[in-house]
Amino acid sequence: MADGPEEIGRLIGLMARLPGMGPRSARRAVLHLVKKRSQVLLPLAEAMKAVGESVRPCVACGNLATSDLCPICANPKRATGTLCVVADVADLWAMERSQAFQGRYHVLGGLLSALDAIGPDELGIPKLVARVTEEELTEIILALPATIDGQTTAHYIADALPELNVTSLAQGVPIGGELDFLDDGTISAALRARARV
Amino acid sequence: MADGPEEIGRLIGLMARLPGMGPRSARRAVLHLVKKRSQVLLPLAEAMKAVGESVRPCVACGNLATSDLCPICANPKRATGTLCVVADVADLWAMERSQAFQGRYHVLGGLLSALDAIGPDELGIPKLVARVTEEELTEIILALPATIDGQTTAHYIADALPELNVTSLAQGVPIGGELDFLDDGTISAALRARARV
Ligand SMILES: [Zn+2]
Ligand SMILES: [Zn+2]
Repeated sequence: MADGPEEIGRLIGLMARLPGMGPRSARRAVLHLVKKRSQVLLPLAEAMKAVGESVRPCVACGNLATSDLCPICANPKRATGTLCVVADVADLWAMERSQAFQGRYHVLGGLLSALDAIGPDELGIPKLVARVTEEELTEIILALPATIDGQTTAHYIADALPELNVTSLAQGVPIGGELDFLDDGTISAALRARARV
Repeated sequence: MADGPEEIGRLIGLMARLPGMGPRSARRAVLHLVKKRSQVLLPLAEAMKAVGESVRPCVACGNLATSDLCPICANPKRATGTLCVVADVADLWAMERSQAFQGRYHVLGGLLSALDAIGPDELGIPKLVARVTEEELTEIILALPATIDGQTTAHYIADALPELNVTSLAQGVPIGGELDFLDDGTISAALRARARV
């Protein structure tokens, strides 16, 4: 960067690669960071380092964790028997914010996609099928996006578990919509009105 | 955060305080960081630490620097005699991107504002007046926003330097517009068509 220290140019370049950021917003953010050195910049650097060193996927569900099990899987008060399947950790968080579900989760880490060559093995669907037996599950609730890939994935899971009650969030999820955009009330309503796939 | 490790909640809270970010975009950014641990998260933490430890204001102009003088002030090829006065470092960078100005800068760090109780001393205008004598300046170009506060500041500086040729970016800067939003061509045209205040 011709107009400032290279440390600043490097930081702007990295910030600009965050989702929702571009070169201009990255420049603004970095100038803000420099002005708020002790209040924001240094705490943010420390918080990123701490996350980088301690956060990893929960071995049971795929949520983010700092030990083998995430707080949800480690919580004995969470209901067993019913599992909520989500595409991504952001969707798990959206479900949790709605406070409408008291059980445990299974994070697929994506959706089936012929275009992106993502098949059942990439999503760990065999692992999900194994959990059904191991944990004596009685119901799987699919909280997947109302997209083509989401519906393909839902049908694949329902077909893979013919003896199980596989339901899906139904009423309230807009066509083409993503869970993380929904308000808590919509998610609660969709959960109550879940229907068999 | 009930639905994940507290390290994640803390990082989201800090990210959400950046300009242009909110809770939702901060969550998305943090999930992206966790997924790109070695490519983005750890380099970003390091880059922030490096900026926090090494970047400070240039003692001469107020631009960001890693030594006493910024690269512009330290560059013997930059023209002396003419100084460009900007409100903020972001505006200095916008001027530099236009490549239309070959001299040095003076960063005010804001604009005169009765509402925010920002007076000439808060902006270091006495220091600017001192530079005029010390550096034997012949012209000061004001590259300030075309806002009420920007015009107030421009007139104050022109009045404080009655013997000096004080000009201002004129043609091309939209009313109410901020420099950092302009394209390079507009900035170049405004510089060429500068007029006495
Ligand atoms: Zn878990
Ligand atoms: Zn300087």
